[in-house]
Amino acid sequence: MAGNSFGNLFKLTTFGESHGRALGGVIDGCPAGIELDFDAIQRELDRRKPGQSAIVTQRKEPDAVEFYSGIFEGKTTGTPIGFAIHNTNQKSKDYSHIKDSYRPSHADYVYDQKYGFRDYRGGGRSSARETASRVVAGAIAKQFLKEIKITAYVSAVGDLKLDTPYTELNFSEIEKNPVRCADAQMAAQMESYIKDIRKQGDTVGGVITCVAENVPIGLGEPVFDKLHAEIGKAMLSINAVKGFEYGSGFAGCAMKGSEHNDQYNSDGTTKTNYSGGIQGGISNGMDIYFNVAFKPVATIIQPYETIDKEGNPVTTQGKGRHDPCVVPRAVPIVEAMMALVLADYTLLNRTIKI
Amino acid sequence: MAGNSFGNLFKLTTFGESHGRALGGVIDGCPAGIELDFDAIQRELDRRKPGQSAIVTQRKEPDAVEFYSGIFEGKTTGTPIGFAIHNTNQKSKDYSHIKDSYRPSHADYVYDQKYGFRDYRGGGRSSARETASRVVAGAIAKQFLKEIKITAYVSAVGDLKLDTPYTELNFSEIEKNPVRCADAQMAAQMESYIKDIRKQGDTVGGVITCVAENVPIGLGEPVFDKLHAEIGKAMLSINAVKGFEYGSGFAGCAMKGSEHNDQYNSDGTTKTNYSGGIQGGISNGMDIYFNVAFKPVATIIQPYETIDKEGNPVTTQGKGRHDPCVVPRAVPIVEAMMALVLADYTLLNRTIKI
Amino acid sequence: MAGNSFGNLFKLTTFGESHGRALGGVIDGCPAGIELDFDAIQRELDRRKPGQSAIVTQRKEPDAVEFYSGIFEGKTTGTPIGFAIHNTNQKSKDYSHIKDSYRPSHADYVYDQKYGFRDYRGGGRSSARETASRVVAGAIAKQFLKEIKITAYVSAVGDLKLDTPYTELNFSEIEKNPVRCADAQMAAQMESYIKDIRKQGDTVGGVITCVAENVPIGLGEPVFDKLHAEIGKAMLSINAVKGFEYGSGFAGCAMKGSEHNDQYNSDGTTKTNYSGGIQGGISNGMDIYFNVAFKPVATIIQPYETIDKEGNPVTTQGKGRHDPCVVPRAVPIVEAMMALVLADYTLLNRTIKI
Amino acid sequence: MAGNSFGNLFKLTTFGESHGRALGGVIDGCPAGIELDFDAIQRELDRRKPGQSAIVTQRKEPDAVEFYSGIFEGKTTGTPIGFAIHNTNQKSKDYSHIKDSYRPSHADYVYDQKYGFRDYRGGGRSSARETASRVVAGAIAKQFLKEIKITAYVSAVGDLKLDTPYTELNFSEIEKNPVRCADAQMAAQMESYIKDIRKQGDTVGGVITCVAENVPIGLGEPVFDKLHAEIGKAMLSINAVKGFEYGSGFAGCAMKGSEHNDQYNSDGTTKTNYSGGIQGGISNGMDIYFNVAFKPVATIIQPYETIDKEGNPVTTQGKGRHDPCVVPRAVPIVEAMMALVLADYTLLNRTIKI
Repeated sequence: MAGNSFGNLFKLTTFGESHGRALGGVIDGCPAGIELDFDAIQRELDRRKPGQSAIVTQRKEPDAVEFYSGIFEGKTTGTPIGFAIHNTNQKSKDYSHIKDSYRPSHADYVYDQKYGFRDYRGGGRSSARETASRVVAGAIAKQFLKEIKITAYVSAVGDLKLDTPYTELNFSEIEKNPVRCADAQMAAQMESYIKDIRKQGDTVGGVITCVAENVPIGLGEPVFDKLHAEIGKAMLSINAVKGFEYGSGFAGCAMKGSEHNDQYNSDGTTKTNYSGGIQGGISNGMDIYFNVAFKPVATIIQPYETIDKEGNPVTTQGKGRHDPCVVPRAVPIVEAMMALVLADYTLLNRTIKI
Repeated sequence: MAGNSFGNLFKLTTFGESHGRALGGVIDGCPAGIELDFDAIQRELDRRKPGQSAIVTQRKEPDAVEFYSGIFEGKTTGTPIGFAIHNTNQKSKDYSHIKDSYRPSHADYVYDQKYGFRDYRGGGRSSARETASRVVAGAIAKQFLKEIKITAYVSAVGDLKLDTPYTELNFSEIEKNPVRCADAQMAAQMESYIKDIRKQGDTVGGVITCVAENVPIGLGEPVFDKLHAEIGKAMLSINAVKGFEYGSGFAGCAMKGSEHNDQYNSDGTTKTNYSGGIQGGISNGMDIYFNVAFKPVATIIQPYETIDKEGNPVTTQGKGRHDPCVVPRAVPIVEAMMALVLADYTLLNRTIKI
Repeated sequence: MAGNSFGNLFKLTTFGESHGRALGGVIDGCPAGIELDFDAIQRELDRRKPGQSAIVTQRKEPDAVEFYSGIFEGKTTGTPIGFAIHNTNQKSKDYSHIKDSYRPSHADYVYDQKYGFRDYRGGGRSSARETASRVVAGAIAKQFLKEIKITAYVSAVGDLKLDTPYTELNFSEIEKNPVRCADAQMAAQMESYIKDIRKQGDTVGGVITCVAENVPIGLGEPVFDKLHAEIGKAMLSINAVKGFEYGSGFAGCAMKGSEHNDQYNSDGTTKTNYSGGIQGGISNGMDIYFNVAFKPVATIIQPYETIDKEGNPVTTQGKGRHDPCVVPRAVPIVEAMMALVLADYTLLNRTIKI
Repeated sequence: MAGNSFGNLFKLTTFGESHGRALGGVIDGCPAGIELDFDAIQRELDRRKPGQSAIVTQRKEPDAVEFYSGIFEGKTTGTPIGFAIHNTNQKSKDYSHIKDSYRPSHADYVYDQKYGFRDYRGGGRSSARETASRVVAGAIAKQFLKEIKITAYVSAVGDLKLDTPYTELNFSEIEKNPVRCADAQMAAQMESYIKDIRKQGDTVGGVITCVAENVPIGLGEPVFDKLHAEIGKAMLSINAVKGFEYGSGFAGCAMKGSEHNDQYNSDGTTKTNYSGGIQGGISNGMDIYFNVAFKPVATIIQPYETIDKEGNPVTTQGKGRHDPCVVPRAVPIVEAMMALVLADYTLLNRTIKI
């Protein structure tokens, strides 16, 4: 209820603040019998972790996950998987610029208003550090969903947009560049642009595209829990996300039905895929693809004006080691959330027929 | 679980197929003591109902709601509100074009694949007729949320886009034209365009913008149940929706942090509102605004090619009375879903402090 | 949340007040493809309905159920099953003895305190009339659970106790007597006793025993949703229930482990069944059996003293047509709730392994 | 869904196996602003921990809880409280008597059948060690429910029954004896009896009575989530529980309505309290009291016959350090579960009126 759980049957509950003792979670409902590849889980965490390249925050956090339960002799047991990632980098810092005033477009102000006070260290619960727990759970969900291939990549940074349809891209490019763009040339431009932005102490937004291939037909529960509605919620729950569209998306609004309708082949596949792999909220076996819009990170390393708790104007200075652009590190988070949705809906779909 | 409920504390469960005996729902958790304005509820249904203008489907459905429970002496009692809308227009029709073949970009195929068979009459459960129940519940939610003003309007039809920011529009225009566009001149163009589309037997998509004013600070539950994540899910659960963005949305991705950050005034309001009234998933007291993208309706009154259940190619002909463009009738649905989210999150927010 | 839903995957939501327009419910998550026997559903309702014998209330309510959705060509479709039972017997009555004062051991007082006011007609939502909706849903659950046989019977009325173990009873006796006792001789005594009680204008409590045979191994979710915990909750949610015990129950507390442990046969069955078919919260394939304690109905047809809304003492007189002993009519309700639990847990159990 | 969470708004999710690395949980929805008394939390754990007296298991487990999140400057922040209790006593043991055969009346067999395999060390997830996490959460719930006093005590061990009504007992006796019986003399008899049982390598069951004083009027959600239904489920979810009754309980079945009805005083309190503080599922302000039946522990230190995985008969020997009678250590667990229910229902009750 308090919003720290995701999923119905394959369910993740997370806990932890940015600079608390540990963050982690509980995965309840993970089916018994999955032989876990722990290296693969750590690799996903490494894709998200700080300090992995010159264009992301230079904080040092090893993000090593410890599993406490739910696994026996290398396999999931069907009981809840408890895990923790200890914060090793909690040096006693100067938080005065955060503690007593509200950073613009951050959650500082609303947390104080909602709860009466807040753990201000590093943004507390509102920090994207929480998403490390999602990546752990998503990595396990991926191992449950062996047949399905989920691939996310950066398709825009600021004004730099990769307009090539995903079907014409070579996904093996993605992990070869620090931006995680699926086109090498565009990646180079984006990287250079992000470096410029960082030098300015500024930040910039971007877009991540995600594709799920080999999704079975039938996932999605009408009417409120349409598959794309749940995917949308999953994506919108990631820090800094401002928008979601799937299939033809916003551009599809300008099309006519006679153009937009996807004609069937005799095997039930469709000749086009404006539907984005989902019809009436239910997967139709075609690729599911969608875009997720991320705003520019609010923390800028520039002087800025704001107010303190009493509403007095104050001028302060952003500091610390922050991401100039969040999308390169958000790629594994998008994949993780997509994996969680598909794992959950796979289980739900087992229950709908006699 | 099976996806026919929405909300946590203020919870709507709907039932009903397009051409079944009745559709309706149960509103559980509606607080006791609301003096209901039944005319206002019916007015919302009338805004959604077929046949209200020349640019919507000409089907005749009175959409009169009967309340069965949860109301006593004109006030909600705190017990579940059961209601039904009887289908009066279930003439025995020729459904052969739907029964034995799959309409492209409809839910026909996936329902058959998921459940093994389907109620094909009028689209069954996948029909947008289900949203009448949402409008009933939303109308009651609005009456609970007396202080909040929720306004939706059509901001695009095909290529015709109303680019004026909502703050410069006169909302009293909206209900004066059949398109429900907030600008009279643009409304006239849209109306004319929809009439053309209808003559072609074709359909077109559009965008609805929604604004919630006077939302209290503090609504929204970190981390998975961020306010905008739940609003996004609510909108994406409406038939034909392909995308959702709030605040600066997709356009915000191209901005820099130094431009995008909303500076505070001394009273905690912000000078700009790129955040769209929500920061860190929690309402900050500024207007909440968002866009919802609708694809063109799949049913076109033209011959089309498709497959039958055995995968044989068939040519068939769309028929019946359908909407050439769904957005005019979807305006009250968007408002209703927004009201449901805000009612639910208002109740949730009562439970978070000692 | 507001407590009008039961179940996780096979989920019933009910609505309706005793003397409102209709009561009914929505069954969400009922698997697609069940060929419904509508006569069997009505037969269950008839077992619960008033006026069926001389020892139950003589009210006349036909309790005919109308299905609105979720069924097509006689089969469940996987979409929500909406249904209603219209109240035909809502004559304008004299409610003054209920309206202005609080009947002892009824819910009148607490409803007023909780909600601020109440629908006092016939007890409103707190009336056991609500259980008619449970019987409808339970009857459908039974049809889903074809292999499982659920049998309930009256095992005590007042001091009259049937101590014979269920294994030595002939269940075909149950429906042959109006008490629904599984022993003809005891049934006669009980019937006679209830008639005496009725003559006194008094009421008496009783116990219902329920047995589920042929339950598959593996139903039940550790740790909070143990099978017997959910069955217990289901039973305790029935009006007038004061206690629940399964297997050896309260008597088992006095036993030693060496006596109480159920030894295994080579096929995994056990030689004794003190466990009541459930070990560690999970069904083990043996019969599940349990007892449900019902208090005497609070409504007595005698003068009684109580208070009015202002706390003034008043003397009033019970009237109307009420049950002198609730257990004969509660037998199908106990079975219905058991069927709902087993249907739900059958679906849950499909999701726990890869 | 998978059964490892309890509560709606004040929600505990637990993880951990008996001999895994750690057990623990996440408390989500705990209101912000509770100043935590950490010593009080540890005291509750100490009441449950092994080795506390001569009549409980002599295992050594310090059961020290570490909090990872949700607390800042000594107060709850409204974000999830993650915690862990590391297992320090996981010596590599000889588990052959558990691993390859099924202990009678344990969960060994059903876990293997349900999940395909199991973590057999110390009973894995089915061990009552899991309840340590409940005690942590319950201790925090108690601190939220400052005004309410929850007291549990042992009222029966084997045939030794304390028949004195709770109103005539001196609760200050409870923690003075190792049995946690509220009567010194009876405590001495019970202690002596448990010692005898232990010498025999046998076990015995018992009953715990629990009383909640000063509960506000209005807690409980009709119709399925009646307060006593949720309390019943909470209790039945505790290991070894076989029955639950509240107020007059099973004995009340033999009473007449005219005796059983609780007459009102002018202030809304009642002269008697057969209702057990709950009417129509809603607390009425009187004391809530109930009994919980515990079976004898299944692990006996005697030779016993059983089957192995292939169904072959085997004779084996119980070993290890086990409780001869579980009720002394279960007293704080019963209190913890009661506190969780009352905390949850207190929050729910904030949402039911305008």
